[in-house]
Amino acid sequence: MQQIQQGQFAAGQRLALRERRPQGTRVALPGVELGGRSFVVMAGPCAVESAAQIEAAAAAVAREGCAVLRGGAFKPRTSPYAFQGLGAPGVQLLLDAARRHGLAAVTEVMDAAELPAFDGVALLQVGARNMQNFTLLKALSHLRRPVLLKRGPSATVDEWLLAAEYLLAGGNDQVVLCERGIRTFETATRNTLDLSAVVLAKQRTHLPVVVDPSHATGRRELVTPLSLAAAAAGADGLLVEVHASPDEALCDGAQALLPEDLADLMARLPAVLEAVGRDLWRATPRRRALAR
Amino acid sequence: MQQIQQGQFAAGQRLALRERRPQGTRVALPGVELGGRSFVVMAGPCAVESAAQIEAAAAAVAREGCAVLRGGAFKPRTSPYAFQGLGAPGVQLLLDAARRHGLAAVTEVMDAAELPAFDGVALLQVGARNMQNFTLLKALSHLRRPVLLKRGPSATVDEWLLAAEYLLAGGNDQVVLCERGIRTFETATRNTLDLSAVVLAKQRTHLPVVVDPSHATGRRELVTPLSLAAAAAGADGLLVEVHASPDEALCDGAQALLPEDLADLMARLPAVLEAVGRDLWRATPRRRALAR
Amino acid sequence: MQQIQQGQFAAGQRLALRERRPQGTRVALPGVELGGRSFVVMAGPCAVESAAQIEAAAAAVAREGCAVLRGGAFKPRTSPYAFQGLGAPGVQLLLDAARRHGLAAVTEVMDAAELPAFDGVALLQVGARNMQNFTLLKALSHLRRPVLLKRGPSATVDEWLLAAEYLLAGGNDQVVLCERGIRTFETATRNTLDLSAVVLAKQRTHLPVVVDPSHATGRRELVTPLSLAAAAAGADGLLVEVHASPDEALCDGAQALLPEDLADLMARLPAVLEAVGRDLWRATPRRRALAR
Amino acid sequence: MQQIQQGQFAAGQRLALRERRPQGTRVALPGVELGGRSFVVMAGPCAVESAAQIEAAAAAVAREGCAVLRGGAFKPRTSPYAFQGLGAPGVQLLLDAARRHGLAAVTEVMDAAELPAFDGVALLQVGARNMQNFTLLKALSHLRRPVLLKRGPSATVDEWLLAAEYLLAGGNDQVVLCERGIRTFETATRNTLDLSAVVLAKQRTHLPVVVDPSHATGRRELVTPLSLAAAAAGADGLLVEVHASPDEALCDGAQALLPEDLADLMARLPAVLEAVGRDLWRATPRRRALAR
Repeated sequence: MQQIQQGQFAAGQRLALRERRPQGTRVALPGVELGGRSFVVMAGPCAVESAAQIEAAAAAVAREGCAVLRGGAFKPRTSPYAFQGLGAPGVQLLLDAARRHGLAAVTEVMDAAELPAFDGVALLQVGARNMQNFTLLKALSHLRRPVLLKRGPSATVDEWLLAAEYLLAGGNDQVVLCERGIRTFETATRNTLDLSAVVLAKQRTHLPVVVDPSHATGRRELVTPLSLAAAAAGADGLLVEVHASPDEALCDGAQALLPEDLADLMARLPAVLEAVGRDLWRATPRRRALAR
Repeated sequence: MQQIQQGQFAAGQRLALRERRPQGTRVALPGVELGGRSFVVMAGPCAVESAAQIEAAAAAVAREGCAVLRGGAFKPRTSPYAFQGLGAPGVQLLLDAARRHGLAAVTEVMDAAELPAFDGVALLQVGARNMQNFTLLKALSHLRRPVLLKRGPSATVDEWLLAAEYLLAGGNDQVVLCERGIRTFETATRNTLDLSAVVLAKQRTHLPVVVDPSHATGRRELVTPLSLAAAAAGADGLLVEVHASPDEALCDGAQALLPEDLADLMARLPAVLEAVGRDLWRATPRRRALAR
Repeated sequence: MQQIQQGQFAAGQRLALRERRPQGTRVALPGVELGGRSFVVMAGPCAVESAAQIEAAAAAVAREGCAVLRGGAFKPRTSPYAFQGLGAPGVQLLLDAARRHGLAAVTEVMDAAELPAFDGVALLQVGARNMQNFTLLKALSHLRRPVLLKRGPSATVDEWLLAAEYLLAGGNDQVVLCERGIRTFETATRNTLDLSAVVLAKQRTHLPVVVDPSHATGRRELVTPLSLAAAAAGADGLLVEVHASPDEALCDGAQALLPEDLADLMARLPAVLEAVGRDLWRATPRRRALAR
Repeated sequence: MQQIQQGQFAAGQRLALRERRPQGTRVALPGVELGGRSFVVMAGPCAVESAAQIEAAAAAVAREGCAVLRGGAFKPRTSPYAFQGLGAPGVQLLLDAARRHGLAAVTEVMDAAELPAFDGVALLQVGARNMQNFTLLKALSHLRRPVLLKRGPSATVDEWLLAAEYLLAGGNDQVVLCERGIRTFETATRNTLDLSAVVLAKQRTHLPVVVDPSHATGRRELVTPLSLAAAAAGADGLLVEVHASPDEALCDGAQALLPEDLADLMARLPAVLEAVGRDLWRATPRRRALAR
């Protein structure tokens, strides 16, 4: 049986296809841009837990020169009995910490009805479980704000690109794709990072593509080597988990980098990026001022 | 290698566990009950396409003695350019046809905001792509109406049961589980029907469990043998696609039974059910009157 | 992307295709036949461990009226440090016990060079890991002895049928297919039993198809319901694990039925088989004499 | 839910574990070494087809400074009707071409009985389908010759390392691991390259690990970016397909690089390798003489 098929990829009407915009799309956040020459690291904890915790994380993220602070406030959790996030107050804590340190903020939105709580969020994340929540996608397609679309853990590349197409078809072309690992039979990692999907998405669409190596692996010791690999493969950035005290994290502590791991990663990325003709976005006072 | 999982199955608080209600839960629809001794066949087209089409399907479904008419009006489609369903008018066409033939109706709801259009729908379906749409689950958990929860194509059994737990935790225990095939490497079928999940769900929870062999296989010729297998394995019913003119169907025609196939299936089920101590729910005038 | 493809299924030259022998192939073992009207249960322990153990198993298997005794002597084990089986002396213990109780024997062969040890074995098993061991398949294709070909845990149906084709192409058409579960993301079961593969294999080929629900699930409590489902789906028989003291088994004890579970299964199968126009093969003195 | 697994990773006796040889194992081939500071590119066609074809490939491979020529002579093919390789004469053609150009040779062995035909082959490949052919592994474990062990497309990392353990347990520690893509639901690529497995295998064992991006993706345009990613992730080398006329290849032409693509890859690798503290092995006259 022939394995390689292209299905609807040929369909001329698709707005995300590379041929529609060969030069690529750049998505501008305050002080930083995704999809340009510079590789962008977005970092922070899985979840916003408290003012002190997100402040510590923001300080570390800013100290290492990263552009964007991540942190979940509305958390999609497999179990209804697991920590569900701080909700709107959590978004506010994230925004406050980001502003203090001159960082843009990215956080997940699960329901368009909650959008008023997301004023000031630079990048609205659609989580992996919601990649085919077409109600949410249609609502976000009517905004003119940047959206980060995570690939569902069992979505084909084509399904992922068609989910992005929902956003573009509604008029929102500020879309960033994020590969975060797929579900396979492997049990040694949380998911399996699929860098071929990153290359395919870059070749087939004009959208920026970033990688989340933390959710993809679930293991801290795999994050740095796979981040370097993502950079070499042509990704436009990373979404990586950092926690000052991972052992006390309310979710996913095993996959969070320590601040010193983040420093090490930021020190190692530039050489790999230079090898593929890119550079690493680094904070400057002017850039920080823009994000405030 | 360390398995990364959370093993919440042991958690005593879970409301869906069999030990909480050893006798099992029965979910009552007008004129029929799921989870009792009788096996219930729910049938109809993938999508409501027109008044004439759903009327023809309803007539066939009623003629064969089935209890429930299925048909999608809000359709979650992978591509934004595919037929998205007739929406609220489609729900009305479904309800009209069902009422004429004394059938209960099941159809998918994608967004709690659209619930007003679903008045009169006996069984609200949460589709496979929305199994972890926790916003939707929480909204439905506050209703006191029956919900059919399809298993996500890449959800573990535990994740599926935890999604059901969202409904129960919110106060709605009228939950029917539906196995509809999982995503595997196999390309000869659309998905892979997982009957072990049906057995596990029956053993571990007190909820009724039905099977959708049409989406599970994507091939008409597999539907009848796998329906018989589902009955033998202990399922409480079927959700099966029937279309009077599958070649003209707007979606998924290749997996729809013809009316004569449905007749054949209904003729073959009773013996298998009797072999496992069950019987087949069949329409009677009194039952039809109840559903009107 | 279209999911259903047929690849080389159309190729006219394939010898296993149903159209080559519409009436189906029957594979004769001493005293019993696979692929006819009667459903055949093959049972016994995962591994031959000792003379006493296999004698106890054989007695239970014969007492319940089964036709064939299973038991591994050459064991393919993931780890080189796990019990590798008793080898040729284990085959002899199996044959001795089978003969005492008038049973045919099935056991796995891993290497054609060891075939002299398999004289008297009625059915030569090719294990799942060796489904694409083409060296072994070619060697067995030159015999005129029945071969049981297990599906690889990650083989598509087409790859499985092409592996059978290696046997037929070499001149051996006494081939029995065995579905034993596929590898998926699910962790609650050892593998995922794929009954759609059984139906497809029956429709597309003229070969008998049996099911191993023990390896497919890895859980004793799932074996009986899935065995009934396999019978309803049209399988020609079962390969099931039975152990008199599963807690002491050297391998896979959690999936072995107790003798009383086997009795229960044999009591429940006839009604399901009758419902689909089949019957259960049961020992008679004459049949036992043939197998001796 | 109980996870069914054996978790043999903790077992102290495993010989492949990194802690047994923290400095890592180096596997020496004529003129080149795997597992040292230098990254090694092994290239050539999927199959040896003719003297002219392998000569053209060898010339290209040598011209670009690669160390090792690959090419299959015994081909495991899904269908018995597909090209099965030239067999022993094919091995001879490969060795002749390699010798003319000062290259070491790697080719697949499917059966220990055929080993006499492999005299002069520097690196004996165990193919993905044979990763758990324990008969073959045990035979090769008694040699003192380098073995390349491909990961089975559905093997967990632990199963792969346990297959290597069969080689080490028998006394052969000249083992090179090769990741070549795993089987997932994705249909846009032939398999899914799993670079997390490469990182895990490097962290957990002392064995060299190489990557086959050609089989992993099945698409030429993905090979170079993923090769760079493999280098960044810490792989010790590549096994890559090159064909002078891919459109005429007897197998897998769509995944073969053209000679000019190989030149491009070899030009781009050094910068990435330098970024991670490695260099690229390049032919020198002295090295070529050693391989002759």
